[in-house]
Amino acid sequence: MFVYSTKIRVRYAETDQMGYMYHGNYAQFYEVGRVEMLRSLGSSYRAIEESGIIMPVVELRCKFIRPARYDEEIEVRVILAKLPGLRMHFTYELYNESGVLINIGETSLAFVNTKINRPCHAPEDFLNKFKAYFEHS
Amino acid sequence: MFVYSTKIRVRYAETDQMGYMYHGNYAQFYEVGRVEMLRSLGSSYRAIEESGIIMPVVELRCKFIRPARYDEEIEVRVILAKLPGLRMHFTYELYNESGVLINIGETSLAFVNTKINRPCHAPEDFLNKFKAYFEHS
Amino acid sequence: MFVYSTKIRVRYAETDQMGYMYHGNYAQFYEVGRVEMLRSLGSSYRAIEESGIIMPVVELRCKFIRPARYDEEIEVRVILAKLPGLRMHFTYELYNESGVLINIGETSLAFVNTKINRPCHAPEDFLNKFKAYFEHS
Amino acid sequence: MFVYSTKIRVRYAETDQMGYMYHGNYAQFYEVGRVEMLRSLGSSYRAIEESGIIMPVVELRCKFIRPARYDEEIEVRVILAKLPGLRMHFTYELYNESGVLINIGETSLAFVNTKINRPCHAPEDFLNKFKAYFEHS
Repeated sequence: MFVYSTKIRVRYAETDQMGYMYHGNYAQFYEVGRVEMLRSLGSSYRAIEESGIIMPVVELRCKFIRPARYDEEIEVRVILAKLPGLRMHFTYELYNESGVLINIGETSLAFVNTKINRPCHAPEDFLNKFKAYFEHS
Repeated sequence: MFVYSTKIRVRYAETDQMGYMYHGNYAQFYEVGRVEMLRSLGSSYRAIEESGIIMPVVELRCKFIRPARYDEEIEVRVILAKLPGLRMHFTYELYNESGVLINIGETSLAFVNTKINRPCHAPEDFLNKFKAYFEHS
Repeated sequence: MFVYSTKIRVRYAETDQMGYMYHGNYAQFYEVGRVEMLRSLGSSYRAIEESGIIMPVVELRCKFIRPARYDEEIEVRVILAKLPGLRMHFTYELYNESGVLINIGETSLAFVNTKINRPCHAPEDFLNKFKAYFEHS
Repeated sequence: MFVYSTKIRVRYAETDQMGYMYHGNYAQFYEVGRVEMLRSLGSSYRAIEESGIIMPVVELRCKFIRPARYDEEIEVRVILAKLPGLRMHFTYELYNESGVLINIGETSLAFVNTKINRPCHAPEDFLNKFKAYFEHS
């Protein structure tokens, strides 16, 4: 298992007239979370795309427990519970500035080889970044 | 059961560099779908808010089957399978211009009385708009 | 001169906690306006891109006179005052449901040939769609 | 004059199918820039709103010189050239990771007293945060 945590501040643009962060914008917080997780491991989603593999999201789930409000710095905790294969599965826990869990999310991403426009396995060098965290588990 | 269908065209702003509609933007298509469903029944989400009840989304699920692409006119089919109580549950089916099912979604919305900031039941006059479609069911 | 008018309803996602449409979202209303103008002339921005020409926005100006509010159906009036050359210049006037002018905008778009990644002139067949409206003017 | 600089990374959500950051999203970068400028001075836009004054954007201008691309960390330089009065005027310069100027922007914001829903002057304690930077100038 690998856990990574980053912080993102809610923009005014992301609020709605309820005074909450619009529920559709959490997907962006998840995106930033997993991209920064990859960066922390010496990987980069940009580099993956440039190598000819895109990772479209094939499933998204969000549970909204409490609102995120304007200007709050939200902690996005990203959890990778198993090594990627044909899919890569992330779960997310979001905490507000008081440390209260406000949101739980999940995404599944596929690997697609853009040259042949077909699903593929996670590339070997990409997998190697994670392997140390999953040995004997 | 009540089924409603509307069409929404994918904006350039909604695409990402994959050339797909960004996965986080489907939540907006669902939103437009359910708001237009309410309007078709002589109701209005704006009026509900003005009466002092907000309906925050408490759960969101999306399955991305095929991409939605720029300028495609997507059919958003909204399905209300049961009468709202403390929650209102919608499911969504999105079809592209070739009639192919590209996305399936679900949202659960709560009713919150803004005067006391507490969950409440669906208001009576709101429920009455739907009742005809659920008799004997 | 060519004037085209279309209507767009403000989404909940587009509001902010002021209860207004977020100022950054007007650019999308302008985008939809000019794309629908092209469609009304038998042209299509999608087709232009597929032919190898992209039209990036190089300048954007907005004057916010009155707020656009949730669920309002905004009339977007798009004005093309002169034939495109190296640039295509649009102006926009937005009116709310009471017919009040709420916003004025301008955008300049370039033509870029993606094969050589260089600015180019408006393609001939694209220009021909507009010429009838600019003769003797 | 007061100049403040912050960095913002381009999200995947913010790109469009041109592979550029969508032009409408720069308004959010400006927003984050000026909000962080205020924070750096011990002020806070959130606190201003809570005190009953909102600052709607009344004018926005952007010049797009070069594209911002996915995952680039953009430097947003915010320039306050004069003390706010009835309006507060910001200019912005955006630089990419190679230090190239890619975008120039301007926004004017009004001060609106929400209790009476009327324009007002910048509050005194807000002004005091800036005064040191504008003495003798």
